[in-house]
Amino acid sequence: MLNYSAELTRLFYALSDPARRAMVERLCNGAAPVSELARPLPMSLPAAMQHLDVLAAAGLVRSEKIGRVRTCSIEPEALRRAEGWINLRRTEWESRLDRLDDYLKILGKEGDGDVSG
Amino acid sequence: MLNYSAELTRLFYALSDPARRAMVERLCNGAAPVSELARPLPMSLPAAMQHLDVLAAAGLVRSEKIGRVRTCSIEPEALRRAEGWINLRRTEWESRLDRLDDYLKILGKEGDGDVSG
Repeated sequence: MLNYSAELTRLFYALSDPARRAMVERLCNGAAPVSELARPLPMSLPAAMQHLDVLAAAGLVRSEKIGRVRTCSIEPEALRRAEGWINLRRTEWESRLDRLDDYLKILGKEGDGDVSG
Repeated sequence: MLNYSAELTRLFYALSDPARRAMVERLCNGAAPVSELARPLPMSLPAAMQHLDVLAAAGLVRSEKIGRVRTCSIEPEALRRAEGWINLRRTEWESRLDRLDDYLKILGKEGDGDVSG
């Protein structure tokens, strides 16, 4: 449970930066070398590589060195876990609203009963 | 677009802390006064209120003071936006995989054709 919480902390922190989100967006369209991920960003290559380290520490990105080129790819399971946590919260909230709605309908019918009876 | 990016940055940053996630989890089961949100957390009331400020700045929580009690509730639309960004990335990645799969099947059939022809 603690590990899951620590993982969520790393995942959401990794996604809380526009440069890192841009890298995730790019990698969801396919694997890419580090240089290609860094190029569109308004920062140096070492700065971009630090962002990649944060994504790798969160388990969102893995990289592999083939010859002299380090190629990165997305880890979809990590995306799924972050999405899953938010989805669970949202559906809890919505099912609570549904229950409240059902309860209000029952109250309304009981009210109608009082009027007609 | 910049505003959307800044909003996502605030949203994911707000979710990158276990105390703030615990508050979101509690509020998805219904509105609660600040004191109730702070009680289970291993921190002082002022520290908990700082976390609530981060959640409010991200648009995840709103609060209302009725008499002497400040009551907080969740803003589901903010949860939906954070979930939506991750969902879009994940489905992009999965549709890319599907296209790759289709392409490999076509290549396989062409290969079969070569063998039989």
